[in-house]
Amino acid sequence: MSRVKVGIIGAGRIGKLHAENLVKMHRVELKAISDLFAGHIREWADRIGIPVVTDHYQNILHDKEIQAILICSPTDTHVPIITEAAKAGKHIFCEKPISFQLEQTKQALEAVKETGVKFQVGFCRRFDQSLKKAHQTVKEGKIGQPHLLRITSRDPHPPTKEYVAASGGLFFDMAIHDFDMARYLVGSEVEEVFAQGAVLIDPMFAECGDVDTAVTTLKFSNGAIGVIDNSRKAVYGYDQRVEVFAANGCVTVENARPTTAAISTAEGVLLDKPKYFFLERYNEAFVQEMADFIESILDDKEVPVTGHDGLQAELIARAAQKSFAEKRPVKIAEIMSAAQV
Amino acid sequence: MSRVKVGIIGAGRIGKLHAENLVKMHRVELKAISDLFAGHIREWADRIGIPVVTDHYQNILHDKEIQAILICSPTDTHVPIITEAAKAGKHIFCEKPISFQLEQTKQALEAVKETGVKFQVGFCRRFDQSLKKAHQTVKEGKIGQPHLLRITSRDPHPPTKEYVAASGGLFFDMAIHDFDMARYLVGSEVEEVFAQGAVLIDPMFAECGDVDTAVTTLKFSNGAIGVIDNSRKAVYGYDQRVEVFAANGCVTVENARPTTAAISTAEGVLLDKPKYFFLERYNEAFVQEMADFIESILDDKEVPVTGHDGLQAELIARAAQKSFAEKRPVKIAEIMSAAQV
Amino acid sequence: MSRVKVGIIGAGRIGKLHAENLVKMHRVELKAISDLFAGHIREWADRIGIPVVTDHYQNILHDKEIQAILICSPTDTHVPIITEAAKAGKHIFCEKPISFQLEQTKQALEAVKETGVKFQVGFCRRFDQSLKKAHQTVKEGKIGQPHLLRITSRDPHPPTKEYVAASGGLFFDMAIHDFDMARYLVGSEVEEVFAQGAVLIDPMFAECGDVDTAVTTLKFSNGAIGVIDNSRKAVYGYDQRVEVFAANGCVTVENARPTTAAISTAEGVLLDKPKYFFLERYNEAFVQEMADFIESILDDKEVPVTGHDGLQAELIARAAQKSFAEKRPVKIAEIMSAAQV
Amino acid sequence: MSRVKVGIIGAGRIGKLHAENLVKMHRVELKAISDLFAGHIREWADRIGIPVVTDHYQNILHDKEIQAILICSPTDTHVPIITEAAKAGKHIFCEKPISFQLEQTKQALEAVKETGVKFQVGFCRRFDQSLKKAHQTVKEGKIGQPHLLRITSRDPHPPTKEYVAASGGLFFDMAIHDFDMARYLVGSEVEEVFAQGAVLIDPMFAECGDVDTAVTTLKFSNGAIGVIDNSRKAVYGYDQRVEVFAANGCVTVENARPTTAAISTAEGVLLDKPKYFFLERYNEAFVQEMADFIESILDDKEVPVTGHDGLQAELIARAAQKSFAEKRPVKIAEIMSAAQV
Repeated sequence: MSRVKVGIIGAGRIGKLHAENLVKMHRVELKAISDLFAGHIREWADRIGIPVVTDHYQNILHDKEIQAILICSPTDTHVPIITEAAKAGKHIFCEKPISFQLEQTKQALEAVKETGVKFQVGFCRRFDQSLKKAHQTVKEGKIGQPHLLRITSRDPHPPTKEYVAASGGLFFDMAIHDFDMARYLVGSEVEEVFAQGAVLIDPMFAECGDVDTAVTTLKFSNGAIGVIDNSRKAVYGYDQRVEVFAANGCVTVENARPTTAAISTAEGVLLDKPKYFFLERYNEAFVQEMADFIESILDDKEVPVTGHDGLQAELIARAAQKSFAEKRPVKIAEIMSAAQV
Repeated sequence: MSRVKVGIIGAGRIGKLHAENLVKMHRVELKAISDLFAGHIREWADRIGIPVVTDHYQNILHDKEIQAILICSPTDTHVPIITEAAKAGKHIFCEKPISFQLEQTKQALEAVKETGVKFQVGFCRRFDQSLKKAHQTVKEGKIGQPHLLRITSRDPHPPTKEYVAASGGLFFDMAIHDFDMARYLVGSEVEEVFAQGAVLIDPMFAECGDVDTAVTTLKFSNGAIGVIDNSRKAVYGYDQRVEVFAANGCVTVENARPTTAAISTAEGVLLDKPKYFFLERYNEAFVQEMADFIESILDDKEVPVTGHDGLQAELIARAAQKSFAEKRPVKIAEIMSAAQV
Repeated sequence: MSRVKVGIIGAGRIGKLHAENLVKMHRVELKAISDLFAGHIREWADRIGIPVVTDHYQNILHDKEIQAILICSPTDTHVPIITEAAKAGKHIFCEKPISFQLEQTKQALEAVKETGVKFQVGFCRRFDQSLKKAHQTVKEGKIGQPHLLRITSRDPHPPTKEYVAASGGLFFDMAIHDFDMARYLVGSEVEEVFAQGAVLIDPMFAECGDVDTAVTTLKFSNGAIGVIDNSRKAVYGYDQRVEVFAANGCVTVENARPTTAAISTAEGVLLDKPKYFFLERYNEAFVQEMADFIESILDDKEVPVTGHDGLQAELIARAAQKSFAEKRPVKIAEIMSAAQV
Repeated sequence: MSRVKVGIIGAGRIGKLHAENLVKMHRVELKAISDLFAGHIREWADRIGIPVVTDHYQNILHDKEIQAILICSPTDTHVPIITEAAKAGKHIFCEKPISFQLEQTKQALEAVKETGVKFQVGFCRRFDQSLKKAHQTVKEGKIGQPHLLRITSRDPHPPTKEYVAASGGLFFDMAIHDFDMARYLVGSEVEEVFAQGAVLIDPMFAECGDVDTAVTTLKFSNGAIGVIDNSRKAVYGYDQRVEVFAANGCVTVENARPTTAAISTAEGVLLDKPKYFFLERYNEAFVQEMADFIESILDDKEVPVTGHDGLQAELIARAAQKSFAEKRPVKIAEIMSAAQV
């Protein structure tokens, strides 16, 4: 059986997560990982069996054996690495967002297009079994034409100020997953965005020029209306629910809980909180995401999340930011025109 | 529209409940109520509009206008009242159990049979919409032949010692509802009973020669096996669940809750406890029970719960008592033979 | 015990519903009902025991015995009847909306204020036990400061074209209940509204200048953001869910179902659809709404839903209409200023 | 980091499952696997990286490097292998049941005791997070003294006739898991058993001298009463629910579903069926079971499921068989006395 030789660029939380999933896969040989602080990860890499650890990602791109790379480094490094990797003929998996600048994202996608390498964007939620079932239910026409979309997406606790300052803001860092999910579920492009936001959790967000609470409404080209609510702090854990309401029915995805135990006492009936955060909730989705990326390479299939998907989500995020800043609905066409994408 | 003139014998909790439901019904004229302590209920009767209050139930039986009576007096008075009422040509609704003695129950049913009056037994749970749906699901063959029956039936708090002492014991007083439900759900007669019991809540039950916790298994003539668990004290409220497992599926009835609100906090997700007790849980069932009794009279239909049903439940209760006492499975045929019913 | 003598103006569906609830109440004497087609309701009124049926509502206002009236006639008759009734010293329960014109609503409320009669607006959902529990949970501070509000409110089937044409439109006819619920749950006034709408169910709505699908976002003066989604046709029944997400937790109200039965087969686990429509879902709420109105009169308490509440919901509805028409967020202050209320 | 060298005896479904879990564990080196048909598994073993494949289990026992073995061969081979392995100083994980003969089980446990090797029995359900939470809830006294135990345990489809014929019967093959779960949840030994059984699914079971449907009631030494219902065929999938009802509350474990999606249509609300079978439902439990076994060796801890646990479950199974055959409750003491264990 042929195996794909893979290298990972960036060994932060998400890079390590992918590494640990890849080493368990039979169709993968995880050959190398790079990190600016290579010394810090050597023991870990050794333990899970990654032969090469380097502090220069170019060493990975120059390794002729390596066929595919994962880009898990900070967002501002994505575009140059994509460009170099594409030129080096590597298949690419890139964490979201591709970049903070639409023009740069466009440029990276062009580099990919020219070289014909596979390019997958890291919208991991599409690989969650429950969300996939909602998507399939709509796609197979089981509930008819979508009319309304609801997404609730709330984190269990806010990130650090350092993270927030460099994150690109709630719409680009957090809601971008929901913007992709919206397109995935409704099966139609977003045409217009109206975003409302507030700082209700921590003034730190205001200091960073960001919000911690937001509601974004979307108009789709098929006429459907969507609404996404986001919060940076849900004390009861990671809250990830979606609903597509359609002409002939409605599909709803509720939160998964760690256990199905219920405790009845004189106080009431107590259920588990939702699974704690994305590592728990999307644990299996991360595995499937890698499996599908590897399969698209080995079996020469289309990647399940394309560069186009990455760009669309960024366009919606940019429109949401502009809508919030200018207190008016903003059309995606306006953003595309301004960014010439 | 013709209306049935009704009298109620016994104005305890259940007599009053039926009275308050009957006075709201268009097809009923509640003419009289009797109670040993008539003075105590006069104001209440006046307020809800019952013209006649008497301390002699015979006054009700002798009232030629009254067509139907409800027997809500203590169990040991049921058989003589049934016998007299049947002779007086009154249609009869009798609270469960008909009596504590199978021979007497049989005698009462014979009096009813001779006179041809309607006779309905007070198994109110059959009128609960959820339990009725379970019954219909089985009866209409939607899940095929029943294999297993599970009933959980637990009260929110124990009765008083006085009540327990006069109750006839857990199997006759409490589980008898479940024995009727078992037959109603499975649609087959019980052939054999094995009962286990314990005193785990309060030694008072042992002092009364009773148990407070029990598990009864039933074998049905169609081959199905059933199991009922009872407790006199569920701190979280009235626990009333049933399940019929069958060849092609399973129907389950969960507890109803006062509200559908759920509160998620750092502790978990808190739901309401089940509805408090039978007055809350079977509130609408009590209304429907009366409506069906009245309808059976005015439209000359068969009553929904017959004397046969009352007798069968008593036979099972007696078998359960004997099984528990003698630590062995007991056949219903053995009980029938001994009691000559 | 003293009883309130009540008259009802308008014997359509909602007038009859209130009548049937009132005749069962001990503290009420329902003396009269008026309808343009009095002949059509005489038999019904006779059967449930309303002594007087008239085709002139003035006969009710002139009846000196009658202390309180219910206004259940078409919306365009509300303001003149309120004004006359207030002058006649009658306590008033008025179905929503008070009127289609903010200026007229204001005028009616002034008439009420001058005469000091009780005035309650018919936002029946506030009396639903589940929604009340959500309200209490927030009000008692159990989950802290509200950050986000979500309301889903979808009807099981669209009204007739005649109804739609005279309804005042989705925002005024249907969403107005949700606008009131929003204020009730969050405990803060709405400051700004942004509404999106679409015709996805039936072109008839477009012909009437209306929409059948809408998403409205609200900004509250306490900083919270709310979102309401509406549809005129949910094939699975009346969909009525709310959620308040707050600093220390979240309270969610799910749909109530007719039964708690679940049927498991090879196809999956099938639960009941939600209760069919408002008569089923808010059945007990309608009773409680009347009970509280009567109590506010007999015990001289404040009414649970005031004229101020009625006006606020209308202001939000008007802002939603304007926002949808002009494709921009609209402040309540702008509406108030224009209408001089 | 030190790693345990492990060998597996028997490469049927369960042997392969453990192998695939062990090769992913950092603290394990899976060195060898034996099977009577070694040729059939060579390719599979190669692919997942097991260096040695043999058709003689003695080769594993004689391998001085191997410190621990898993016994996944047919039940009738367990006792001789345990005895040899213990003498060879190997730590042992043995699938359930230890044997079909209590005397032999006793003999195997004595061999283990003499040599002091670790010995864990394969009751995998104890490692399920939901069932563990139920166990902990009881153990930590959160709901007080247990009064009632309910276990529902139903397979999605019957095994083959060959399997049934060699299985030891429903009580020994299937319900034995539930007997262990009963002890695990209630935290007390079983004293008496009463079993009822029936052939309702397939006459094949009767031909094998077995039943396909059973209800077993248990009396515990702490006074609690338990009831287990079993079926060989639940068309809606693997049904695994438990409940402990106690003095101060109740803990219930519901079935896990593959997704949390719900589809509402005009037919009702459709949820996923339970996870299909034990491989799906106890997927993570099998991993944890191995992790705990390895940890007990490397960190010299007590194994989480002991030989005593294995023996107790067999005693209960034997009592259930006898009870069913003789139609009477059977005490565990009677079984122990007869078997001299």
